[in-house]
Amino acid sequence: MSTAVPPSAPLASGANIGILGGGQLGRMLALAAARLGFKTHVFSDESESCAFYVANETTRARYDDQRALERFARACDVVTFEFENVPDATAHFLADHVAVAPNARSLAIAQDRFLEKSFIAELGIATAGFRHVGNEVEASEAFRALGGPAVLKTQRMGYDGKGQQIVKSAPEAVAAFTALKRVPCILEKFVDFAFEASVVAARARDGSFAAYDPPKNEHEHHILRRSTVPSPLPAAKIEEATAIAKRIAEKLDYVGVLGVELFVGRGGELIVNEIAPRVHNSGHWTIEACVTSQFEQHIRVVAGWPLGSAARHSDAVMENIIGKESDSWLKLAKEQGGLHIYGKREARPGRKMGHITRLSPLTK
Amino acid sequence: MSTAVPPSAPLASGANIGILGGGQLGRMLALAAARLGFKTHVFSDESESCAFYVANETTRARYDDQRALERFARACDVVTFEFENVPDATAHFLADHVAVAPNARSLAIAQDRFLEKSFIAELGIATAGFRHVGNEVEASEAFRALGGPAVLKTQRMGYDGKGQQIVKSAPEAVAAFTALKRVPCILEKFVDFAFEASVVAARARDGSFAAYDPPKNEHEHHILRRSTVPSPLPAAKIEEATAIAKRIAEKLDYVGVLGVELFVGRGGELIVNEIAPRVHNSGHWTIEACVTSQFEQHIRVVAGWPLGSAARHSDAVMENIIGKESDSWLKLAKEQGGLHIYGKREARPGRKMGHITRLSPLTK
Repeated sequence: MSTAVPPSAPLASGANIGILGGGQLGRMLALAAARLGFKTHVFSDESESCAFYVANETTRARYDDQRALERFARACDVVTFEFENVPDATAHFLADHVAVAPNARSLAIAQDRFLEKSFIAELGIATAGFRHVGNEVEASEAFRALGGPAVLKTQRMGYDGKGQQIVKSAPEAVAAFTALKRVPCILEKFVDFAFEASVVAARARDGSFAAYDPPKNEHEHHILRRSTVPSPLPAAKIEEATAIAKRIAEKLDYVGVLGVELFVGRGGELIVNEIAPRVHNSGHWTIEACVTSQFEQHIRVVAGWPLGSAARHSDAVMENIIGKESDSWLKLAKEQGGLHIYGKREARPGRKMGHITRLSPLTK
Repeated sequence: MSTAVPPSAPLASGANIGILGGGQLGRMLALAAARLGFKTHVFSDESESCAFYVANETTRARYDDQRALERFARACDVVTFEFENVPDATAHFLADHVAVAPNARSLAIAQDRFLEKSFIAELGIATAGFRHVGNEVEASEAFRALGGPAVLKTQRMGYDGKGQQIVKSAPEAVAAFTALKRVPCILEKFVDFAFEASVVAARARDGSFAAYDPPKNEHEHHILRRSTVPSPLPAAKIEEATAIAKRIAEKLDYVGVLGVELFVGRGGELIVNEIAPRVHNSGHWTIEACVTSQFEQHIRVVAGWPLGSAARHSDAVMENIIGKESDSWLKLAKEQGGLHIYGKREARPGRKMGHITRLSPLTK
């Protein structure tokens, strides 16, 4: 496996930062990079990539187009990712030509739910009970072993609830496996949580680490609707959640911003749901409520710069603007919030079109 | 004179905003526009324009190149300015082809110190005593009429103290006029002020108005070094300063963000020094300390969008990074401030290379 590392010396302002993926996360990374005087080169396989509009250079090519990847690598001083489903081979190929952060191993683990859960469990961090499901017999056995409602998820790909199905019996687990086209899956025991939270944190190459205050996250139809800071988590639990994220980042030798999604059980226990090896939707409020946003933090770290402050100066509620909700942009603009519109042309159902962050004075 | 107005209906996100001028103000306007999903087209006569790097389209041409201006106008849904020394003829020519904000009259007044001071004085707003100087005799007479130390300034152009000279006698006034190459000048009585302040405010086409808290401004070698909010101005004086800015904006039928630079006399009296018909260096702290920065506010208004909130959630100190100071970017990056680097290649003496804003909890 290639060792993908950020450049050994801090990049000078003006250097070129490559971003794989062209969605809103790449877009906000590019805008944060520009603030620090960096130039960006966005590589995406989609012609309608909203990050293209704010990048200095763009490449539209397939993620397995080695000639395009090589040109991209040569044009960049460091390469990073805005989404975790970059093919393994792409990450490795790039790492042979240019500094890459985070490393390919972090991507490989995060994009495979079974590897991910196994990795977390091996660290002694609580996860939902889980079993690998490769065939109908395993589907049935896994349900019986976990004993109770469970969620069958494809082992790879899938986001915003795509490729997931709740099952309440062994036959339902088998049926769900068939419905998911018999691709390798993972069955996870259903967690009856009080609420969801997340830690968005950054780790630099020198091991320095900074975490934002964990928001409470509310989902609708499996899509993040709202992130709120402060969350109901007491200080001791915030410390515990932050320590979990730090442990994960260290064990991955992670460089960049990562999101660790948590279930908070009814007894207050923390259960890791998944790791996002990238800036995270639940950290968008940091643009308004912190001096250094998660996007700038990520750019700083991949460029070998020192971490900025992750302190929060205000309370914040971030709400996603989803699908046709973006039609009421003028109404949203009238509100006294930090409005972000991603510049996507088509407001398809469930598509994240923008977000708005409302601040209020710091309470804790 | 052409009537330059913003578009009658709010522009949809995704529309093209043209910016004349390619410096850091244009750069920060373009970044603010991108946040709202707008595209930008920067027109500048300098090939090394730092705003070019963050714009969607760029035109490098002279400000009197009518073919280039016409192409630019056709490509934009509205055009605005990032500096006030756009030639009159350029503003008028553009206004015949596309909506322009602020209007050409505001530019014309702000770029001529005599027109500007006369306009302010006619509104009954205090300015330093001033006289027009077109020849040596007038230079001598003007000094005698004002009686005391004065500043001879070229009537047009000049910024950051360029084209200015302090004079302490009538013969010195004559000598200064000769030194300034006998171009039309204005002699202003020297104001012995306690400190400098500024109002950065926005006016929309419907007359709605929003002003940021006026900072105290400190200059070094005629260049802004530091802006601090809150300033020592008491509430009643803040109200008075804001009313002055509002009056000026209304009388200019102004659309956009403007800066009104003030001297605060030792008795607390407010004296208007000059009007900047654009976003203003003393408003850079609004990026970190307000939900809607002066840059977004300007973009909102020229696009016909509603004003955002000008409320401040934190105290702030903004410091410019000037000339070779930008060599210590790594040291600056270690500080827990909002760092902005403009991406200019050459750190010439006196050149504004970036700025940093440090926040602290709100005190008043």
